[in-house]
Amino acid sequence: MAYKDEKLNEEKVFKDPVHRYVHVRDRVIWDLIGTPEFQRLRRVKQLGTSYTTFHGAEHSRFNHSLGVYEIVRRIINNFENRPNWNEDERLLCLAAALLHDLGHGPFSHSFEKVFKLDHEDFTRKIILGDTGVNAILRRVDDNFPHKVAEVINKTYENKLVVSLISSQIDADRMDYLQRDAYFTGVSYGHFDMERILRVMRPMEDQVVVKESGMHAVEDYIMSRYQMYWQVYFHPVTRSAEVILTKILHRAKELYENQYSFYLEPYHFTSFFAGEVDLQDYLKLDENVVMYYFQIWKDEIDPVLSDLCKRFVDRHLFKYVEFNPNQQMSEWMELHKLFQKAGIDPDYYLVVDSSSDLPYDFYRPGEEGERLPIHLLRPNGELKELSRQSDIVESISGKKRTDHKLYFPKDLIEGLSNRSKTKKRILEILYG
Amino acid sequence: MAYKDEKLNEEKVFKDPVHRYVHVRDRVIWDLIGTPEFQRLRRVKQLGTSYTTFHGAEHSRFNHSLGVYEIVRRIINNFENRPNWNEDERLLCLAAALLHDLGHGPFSHSFEKVFKLDHEDFTRKIILGDTGVNAILRRVDDNFPHKVAEVINKTYENKLVVSLISSQIDADRMDYLQRDAYFTGVSYGHFDMERILRVMRPMEDQVVVKESGMHAVEDYIMSRYQMYWQVYFHPVTRSAEVILTKILHRAKELYENQYSFYLEPYHFTSFFAGEVDLQDYLKLDENVVMYYFQIWKDEIDPVLSDLCKRFVDRHLFKYVEFNPNQQMSEWMELHKLFQKAGIDPDYYLVVDSSSDLPYDFYRPGEEGERLPIHLLRPNGELKELSRQSDIVESISGKKRTDHKLYFPKDLIEGLSNRSKTKKRILEILYG
Amino acid sequence: MAYKDEKLNEEKVFKDPVHRYVHVRDRVIWDLIGTPEFQRLRRVKQLGTSYTTFHGAEHSRFNHSLGVYEIVRRIINNFENRPNWNEDERLLCLAAALLHDLGHGPFSHSFEKVFKLDHEDFTRKIILGDTGVNAILRRVDDNFPHKVAEVINKTYENKLVVSLISSQIDADRMDYLQRDAYFTGVSYGHFDMERILRVMRPMEDQVVVKESGMHAVEDYIMSRYQMYWQVYFHPVTRSAEVILTKILHRAKELYENQYSFYLEPYHFTSFFAGEVDLQDYLKLDENVVMYYFQIWKDEIDPVLSDLCKRFVDRHLFKYVEFNPNQQMSEWMELHKLFQKAGIDPDYYLVVDSSSDLPYDFYRPGEEGERLPIHLLRPNGELKELSRQSDIVESISGKKRTDHKLYFPKDLIEGLSNRSKTKKRILEILYG
Amino acid sequence: MAYKDEKLNEEKVFKDPVHRYVHVRDRVIWDLIGTPEFQRLRRVKQLGTSYTTFHGAEHSRFNHSLGVYEIVRRIINNFENRPNWNEDERLLCLAAALLHDLGHGPFSHSFEKVFKLDHEDFTRKIILGDTGVNAILRRVDDNFPHKVAEVINKTYENKLVVSLISSQIDADRMDYLQRDAYFTGVSYGHFDMERILRVMRPMEDQVVVKESGMHAVEDYIMSRYQMYWQVYFHPVTRSAEVILTKILHRAKELYENQYSFYLEPYHFTSFFAGEVDLQDYLKLDENVVMYYFQIWKDEIDPVLSDLCKRFVDRHLFKYVEFNPNQQMSEWMELHKLFQKAGIDPDYYLVVDSSSDLPYDFYRPGEEGERLPIHLLRPNGELKELSRQSDIVESISGKKRTDHKLYFPKDLIEGLSNRSKTKKRILEILYG
Repeated sequence: MAYKDEKLNEEKVFKDPVHRYVHVRDRVIWDLIGTPEFQRLRRVKQLGTSYTTFHGAEHSRFNHSLGVYEIVRRIINNFENRPNWNEDERLLCLAAALLHDLGHGPFSHSFEKVFKLDHEDFTRKIILGDTGVNAILRRVDDNFPHKVAEVINKTYENKLVVSLISSQIDADRMDYLQRDAYFTGVSYGHFDMERILRVMRPMEDQVVVKESGMHAVEDYIMSRYQMYWQVYFHPVTRSAEVILTKILHRAKELYENQYSFYLEPYHFTSFFAGEVDLQDYLKLDENVVMYYFQIWKDEIDPVLSDLCKRFVDRHLFKYVEFNPNQQMSEWMELHKLFQKAGIDPDYYLVVDSSSDLPYDFYRPGEEGERLPIHLLRPNGELKELSRQSDIVESISGKKRTDHKLYFPKDLIEGLSNRSKTKKRILEILYG
Repeated sequence: MAYKDEKLNEEKVFKDPVHRYVHVRDRVIWDLIGTPEFQRLRRVKQLGTSYTTFHGAEHSRFNHSLGVYEIVRRIINNFENRPNWNEDERLLCLAAALLHDLGHGPFSHSFEKVFKLDHEDFTRKIILGDTGVNAILRRVDDNFPHKVAEVINKTYENKLVVSLISSQIDADRMDYLQRDAYFTGVSYGHFDMERILRVMRPMEDQVVVKESGMHAVEDYIMSRYQMYWQVYFHPVTRSAEVILTKILHRAKELYENQYSFYLEPYHFTSFFAGEVDLQDYLKLDENVVMYYFQIWKDEIDPVLSDLCKRFVDRHLFKYVEFNPNQQMSEWMELHKLFQKAGIDPDYYLVVDSSSDLPYDFYRPGEEGERLPIHLLRPNGELKELSRQSDIVESISGKKRTDHKLYFPKDLIEGLSNRSKTKKRILEILYG
Repeated sequence: MAYKDEKLNEEKVFKDPVHRYVHVRDRVIWDLIGTPEFQRLRRVKQLGTSYTTFHGAEHSRFNHSLGVYEIVRRIINNFENRPNWNEDERLLCLAAALLHDLGHGPFSHSFEKVFKLDHEDFTRKIILGDTGVNAILRRVDDNFPHKVAEVINKTYENKLVVSLISSQIDADRMDYLQRDAYFTGVSYGHFDMERILRVMRPMEDQVVVKESGMHAVEDYIMSRYQMYWQVYFHPVTRSAEVILTKILHRAKELYENQYSFYLEPYHFTSFFAGEVDLQDYLKLDENVVMYYFQIWKDEIDPVLSDLCKRFVDRHLFKYVEFNPNQQMSEWMELHKLFQKAGIDPDYYLVVDSSSDLPYDFYRPGEEGERLPIHLLRPNGELKELSRQSDIVESISGKKRTDHKLYFPKDLIEGLSNRSKTKKRILEILYG
Repeated sequence: MAYKDEKLNEEKVFKDPVHRYVHVRDRVIWDLIGTPEFQRLRRVKQLGTSYTTFHGAEHSRFNHSLGVYEIVRRIINNFENRPNWNEDERLLCLAAALLHDLGHGPFSHSFEKVFKLDHEDFTRKIILGDTGVNAILRRVDDNFPHKVAEVINKTYENKLVVSLISSQIDADRMDYLQRDAYFTGVSYGHFDMERILRVMRPMEDQVVVKESGMHAVEDYIMSRYQMYWQVYFHPVTRSAEVILTKILHRAKELYENQYSFYLEPYHFTSFFAGEVDLQDYLKLDENVVMYYFQIWKDEIDPVLSDLCKRFVDRHLFKYVEFNPNQQMSEWMELHKLFQKAGIDPDYYLVVDSSSDLPYDFYRPGEEGERLPIHLLRPNGELKELSRQSDIVESISGKKRTDHKLYFPKDLIEGLSNRSKTKKRILEILYG
């Protein structure tokens, strides 16, 4: 039997707290899960620094990747024998779902920002490079790795397949909303996925949802909205991320200035140098990063040492609402006051802005355009969601931004009480 | 106001997936949670290697410690104004609940076995030594650290207080059963804790349960039984633990034989030498251990390198039922066959035995005696649980043991097909 | 001890699927629950005809009334020792919460419409009249029944007390959304009530919610919105209600025309005559109504008999979208066509319109004005919810109406295929 | 297309709180659900008088019947293409599952006892008689009604089919344990049904369970055990049932003695006379029974009137532990004392005994023999459950009985305080 058609003797199942069970029958999928590159996702947290706010949020990307695979498996099961659905795309969909996050590194967001990396690049490199994953995909057929990479890259010609993994109501989002809600314990993030799956229909170039399922979709959109503001953009989580980013900046700066580390930061050197190859990348998981942060607590450089203590021991920055665009003069004054107080503003005075677009209709030609959700009416007509739903219409296309200023309140409070600088800083921050 | 009586301005809450919210009003508790020693528990998994079987089981001991604290808080709330309850013990109970697992190191079980350590020793040392935790406890009163250590050590004079944390139905067990069930996703582990808490009553020397709550307690005992055999003793989890233990053994052996590691294993040297001090211990969390395992994948020693690859990439040993007491000759023959095949049996042929005593009545004088659960009858009389409950009686005092033999099936299968050794090994293992 | 202060020896608990347990310590509450008038609520379904759509929706108003009581109990517990809260109002709040739906009759909505009754009137009459409930309330103090009635009537002077039971975020709504979601099994209806309760604060004339709980309140508002359109206004449920209403109309009409019923409808005669006294009202529960509907299945009058069969055996009317305001000519034509076909349009051609206002800000002077929800900011300022929340703002004050036309499709299809009337009817209905 | 193979254009779903959705594709099943006889099950509560103890337990047998159907549907889905499974039996299994409880009357247990009826008899009569259900089954094929009746009667030749509906681990039990737990709100009743369904395998004459699922089955057996003692045999529920039974006895006795009822009890007369035909039976649902109980509250006969008030207004009998076999003399003395006090012991002094056999191995030849559960080992061998499971072994074959004595404590307390009779009664009852 061809490798691509091989089934396991007995279906394997993973006990999953969110979907109850994840089912695997295909030998290819089973083998992919067993590769070192996929197992590595156990060592990258799904929610980065969110565990500092929600202690339950310690789950890994391994968890989530299995979940996305399982959702796609269920969707496809329902597609069997429907028009527009080609059963030959089945394995491709499953593999792409499983592997879509393969390139995520430790604390992805911060690493990408500081070292100018792109996790999607690395996903592609892992799939196409000299890896265990590639070896298995090639056994399916020589072109299979490329097809999987294209689906994840959204350039695959069959847009229906792409839309299963990347659209405004894809398996990725449906999994992470529920999973992150489960592990954090928040009560947002519930929606009737079973119903949504049941009303999904394959069309030529996208998955659509039968109009009768509109309210379930509304509920999903609202879940997403709440999860962004209640969980993903939680200001305490962002405080941890601000510190993490500054640690990486500092270490890079020290390295560039020939600072002599107590232990040579082997795992980081190619990142500092901007020459990260695939093997370097795969070795740097969150355990390794945390190892360095811990030994850097004892470094001589006071900034690096202080920031690492803050991160490891969860002694975070405080924050106030602050919009630098509208408060430019305060911002500049604070900068100067921090310098005067001997607290380096480059590391200790940070504005972080988060913004979210909860749902968007189609804006052709615009940057980052996203395909909207379409409802399928009984008469076969398609209608864009926000035209049918008052609630979705009301939040559609409206970007919301939150600006916060982060700083080490303890250091400021540690200044002499007679210090005018201290008084003025507190005045600006707390009014 | 005395430090011990200080309340936070606003109650703080932690969102907890198991108990919904963990509530903190006492300044002392809040400060303890903020210490580096307590935050370190985020870097030690609650279930060690169970994540290799149940991918959701990635939660930390930090999680669990907050949960135990919360349960004790609720029990004590119900005790207010009841006979036998002394409100002065309140803070002591809360602190002991929060800190009871403070001394757990990475993958505790294996480390304790290989390096002959005792996590309870380290709990005591952290509470009494020069630590952030000790500093806070001492602010309550000079003798407070000692009292907390005594409660955790079960030597505190008020046995009622001890029984909240360590008995056959204590806050520790009630939390971990529910929490581990939640994160693994198994359906065992549910019982009506709210009811049990409502019928708990303080007696002079122990917490007892009103007879009307007997069925809820039965359910709890059954949960415990199922969790042990379905989760804690899962053979795949034990496979990962077998490998982990062998890694530590090998590294120690290499160190003792002056093997030259690519990177000096600083964090381990005091463990290898049997001279672990408190600071060494606190630095060795699971991130650090995993860091070493990863770099050891590239070590020259083939055994260390192979075992580390197996552990990190989850390429585990297979197993068969095997009772070495009854199968001594096969055991010895296998030993020889492995040597002949060039597979070192000291590292690659391992028997692991797990046993559990689901509930025990009192056996005075015996080793490891455990206080039984007592039911309070309407007439004030106490009855030992197994005398009232048929189900508990049926499993009471009955130890169950499971023996498994672990080995690298892939290495054996890799032997030449003409090899008689291979044939004989497979014959013994699979009949 | 005064009756109002009497506590039960042991707290009583009711196992409740929604709130886990309902706790009762007050003798007065316990005694009220035991009255025949309160027990009668077991014989009135919470959701009327919804069970015809959602088979789980068989729960009674007894269920819900206990739930509202429990929520108010928890809110008040949190109010203890807060400013603006007077502990003397405690029992009044609990009693009013428990009894707020006491006057609901069978299938309230339809009965009120056909017989021009008002369940709030009957609540008042039961509380003030010669009933078991009144006897108990009077034991508290002579004026207590009046106070309870005033709270339920929203005329009590302390508006804070009133707002616990009747406002846009009161205990009534919080219970029914969760309870109806639980019993129907829909996934809407979840929100974090525990958090809302924790951030509720008593103000002089209303309960407000701390701003930090805004997102939980948003979630509650969205739940409410979804429950209205997905459950309460479900078109199948309304079909059953349309038939129920028509049965009552027909029976009344027959009675007025001296029709001779097989069994004299004793329980209904005062309703037909428009002279319902308290005792008649209390006797007519849903069992009794269903008894009559069943025997009326065998009545000679074909309309009464047919409608009762439809209702009892769940053989409902079909429906199409239809707005009589915009489709007046079709409406009139259908009327004539039905007459021509011998299907009495007064009973078999029914427009039903449902509309909901999901949230409303204050509109002083307007009919049916409802107090908006206020958020309490850290600086003590109050802000109306829709000014702070984009989502709430988007649905605020926007009434949505749904019009449907109900008819017996089976009767129309039963007409001769050669009938032009049939053809034309189907043309108008289905286009 | 043959009627038996007809599929609905679109799958229909029922929202079910226990199984999320109940799926129907077969026209036959859809039509059966629409029959008056099946709809009648909405008017019979699943748990009889349990709602007097657990207010959530108001769900009907309609609910449960859909659930059993859905479970069988899922089991059969997994059986497709397995050896021993004949796809031709599919529709038979589904129909039998749906209809297995069709003959249940109001408060079945009491009615069966008092009027010597057998609900299984009536199930058969409804399936084979002149009913809507029969008409539909006959459209499948002339012999189909008989086959369905045989499956329900356990006499169908293919025992595999029978075992799906009636065995110690059948769809019936799996549904009611979960459903009754859900509606009562108790935390017992959870087990991993999804896993059990996945490991069920069809054998020649029974369904068996793969050995790897043993712990899930243990959990199910324990759930069953707890549900019996915590819910089904709850002493308060039995108090309501005792009263109900006595009402029926009294009404029958009065009827036999030509008592003149205010309203002729038409619906009951054939029951009193012992000549119940199918139409009488179908008309007597719980609404009708409750109607009579309510009007009997106003009957002249003091016993009937008192008992009906107790039942309708939930003013139940109290109880004490009492074993008449061992307390014969107290029993006889109480009898006399009640007579002396003017409280008719035939109606007001009742012993009720409940007993359960949680699991039973096979006892050939014994009355009421039940097929045990068999585990399927990897080598194909079958093992009876209690031989593999310590826990099941421990409760296997052990019948547990609970005796309680019920009486109207209020009437006894109402006797004069100087009465020696009163004093002596209370002495015997409460010691």
